[in-house]
Amino acid sequence: MTFPTIGKSASERILLSHGGGGGRTKQLLRDVILPALGYDGSEKLDDAAYVETPDREVAVTTDSYVVRPLFFPGGDIGRLAVSGTVNDLAMQGAAPLALTLGLVIEEGLEIDVLRRAMESVGRTAREAGVRIVTGDTKVIERRTGDGLFINTAGLGSRYRGADTGVGNARPGDAVLVSGTLGDHGVAVMSAREAWGLSSRLESDVAPLWDMVRGLLDAVPGVRCLRDPTRGGLAAALNDIAEASGAGVRIREDALPVRDEVRGVCDLLGLDPLNVANEGKTVVVCAAADAERALAALRAHPRGRAAAAIGEVVKGPAGRVRLATRLGGERMVDAPSGEDLPRIC
Amino acid sequence: MTFPTIGKSASERILLSHGGGGGRTKQLLRDVILPALGYDGSEKLDDAAYVETPDREVAVTTDSYVVRPLFFPGGDIGRLAVSGTVNDLAMQGAAPLALTLGLVIEEGLEIDVLRRAMESVGRTAREAGVRIVTGDTKVIERRTGDGLFINTAGLGSRYRGADTGVGNARPGDAVLVSGTLGDHGVAVMSAREAWGLSSRLESDVAPLWDMVRGLLDAVPGVRCLRDPTRGGLAAALNDIAEASGAGVRIREDALPVRDEVRGVCDLLGLDPLNVANEGKTVVVCAAADAERALAALRAHPRGRAAAAIGEVVKGPAGRVRLATRLGGERMVDAPSGEDLPRIC
Repeated sequence: MTFPTIGKSASERILLSHGGGGGRTKQLLRDVILPALGYDGSEKLDDAAYVETPDREVAVTTDSYVVRPLFFPGGDIGRLAVSGTVNDLAMQGAAPLALTLGLVIEEGLEIDVLRRAMESVGRTAREAGVRIVTGDTKVIERRTGDGLFINTAGLGSRYRGADTGVGNARPGDAVLVSGTLGDHGVAVMSAREAWGLSSRLESDVAPLWDMVRGLLDAVPGVRCLRDPTRGGLAAALNDIAEASGAGVRIREDALPVRDEVRGVCDLLGLDPLNVANEGKTVVVCAAADAERALAALRAHPRGRAAAAIGEVVKGPAGRVRLATRLGGERMVDAPSGEDLPRIC
Repeated sequence: MTFPTIGKSASERILLSHGGGGGRTKQLLRDVILPALGYDGSEKLDDAAYVETPDREVAVTTDSYVVRPLFFPGGDIGRLAVSGTVNDLAMQGAAPLALTLGLVIEEGLEIDVLRRAMESVGRTAREAGVRIVTGDTKVIERRTGDGLFINTAGLGSRYRGADTGVGNARPGDAVLVSGTLGDHGVAVMSAREAWGLSSRLESDVAPLWDMVRGLLDAVPGVRCLRDPTRGGLAAALNDIAEASGAGVRIREDALPVRDEVRGVCDLLGLDPLNVANEGKTVVVCAAADAERALAALRAHPRGRAAAAIGEVVKGPAGRVRLATRLGGERMVDAPSGEDLPRIC
């Protein structure tokens, strides 16, 4: 059974039958999804793909992306779905090898919206140097008509013996961050209807493997990498402190936060430490390596604003403390999730 | 920050903050999800895991599961999410190595429902001999309150050089199916409210690697494996015919279909050939291997009703024909998706 080519008219929308696994699903793949990803439609559409790996070990990760709105200043759900998963691999010191792409689409979504999201997936995958090797498309019944959820799973290969898990921090280590904090979460929140906030806010969403590779080349002994996504820097540092059985102390005056981001956070009663980033990494390394690590980060366009923000201390174990501008000190708790907007 | 243990009361429900990535997300993991999967909560919760592979090649697949209702006769979304992805690997001749688990949960879902689905994931993974190595949890805003979508990606390793892609069929080959057709789709449809159909219908949902391994041991040269899931046998055979540039001819009187399934299909105007299966495989092998393949399938509990149903023919290429009981012949088209219920 064949159908006319779809997606040529902006008013066309996703039907439940596009997820049925039959001819209409194939048509959606061949007319919209595969071309947007850079495939020419001649590819074998099997239910699994074989991927060559450099060693007999592979890093694997998965993440589902449910961000609203689907398009926001500086990015969109497609760029986020590739970057987030590439970055989860990078945080384990793994070079990205391949991604899977699982789409759950709501009946009624404009096909043009799907196409633009898929084009962003394709562009970002090329930027990150990673291939989409297999995928799946499901359609769920209509809710609000703007629904698109993307799951990406990622495969990666360990880069030069890197061991960058969150449990490796030791007292005396330096704590760095690769750039300004809070940009992604604030950009997404500002894009929500009726907020009318500054359009100068842009998400930092980006694949970080290229920057991380440069860092690992300069400092092979990096102890921990963690991307401060949901829960922001506060969650990332608490994870490191908890997993390492150590404390972390950071200095408020060392934290890179854009004025616009600080302004929006003040307005909304948010702490920039709790707001998500999608193009930044926390780095823990030996104090003696800190300058080299900072230089490597700053040498990359995405790491220009890298900063040393504190150090790992003996205790209290599992806790993060902030030295305030006023000379005091306060605990930085991991956010509970209560006050975190749905930004990834 | 800590919270009281959750999920002890049947009336507790998922909150948006359970997906925020902060303390409440960790609590949900430690109190509900990890124990249900068979973990004791002491595991390192990093964003990616390293998996050892037998060779420098890995099979990778992904599938999202959106079945409604979440629990149906013979199975549930958790069993489906493990079985479907293990089977996608098995169809490529790959032994399952590891699964990822991506949850998208609707605000308001009863935590007890989530727990039961996760326990089913854990049980089915043990049955399939595969580990859940990493996962992700997101919560979306309330819709109907029964919402749970599961994505599983799977890693596998090629078994003894198997090459079982859909494009390998050759004229003269035998076409087998490992058991009765239509059980899953009919069981799910019958479980939908107000239909009041027979409770003797049960889904066949099951992980098939154990049976497929037995088949590959007996007949290493199996040409194609394809699970007749969405779109049923009709879609699977059309995929094989199209990818192989050959025709397929099957005999109506050889198709194993339970009387109850045939009855429900008659009632609903469905063709059992189009209805989904989740515990069956189509096998194409050389005619000389057919008896050995059938014996290997029938030796496994899930393959008792295996049958030879037809053969690969020269043409018309890409088309599937059915020899009817009445001595006629008709084309079996791939379903378009128009009339396919959302059963996976």
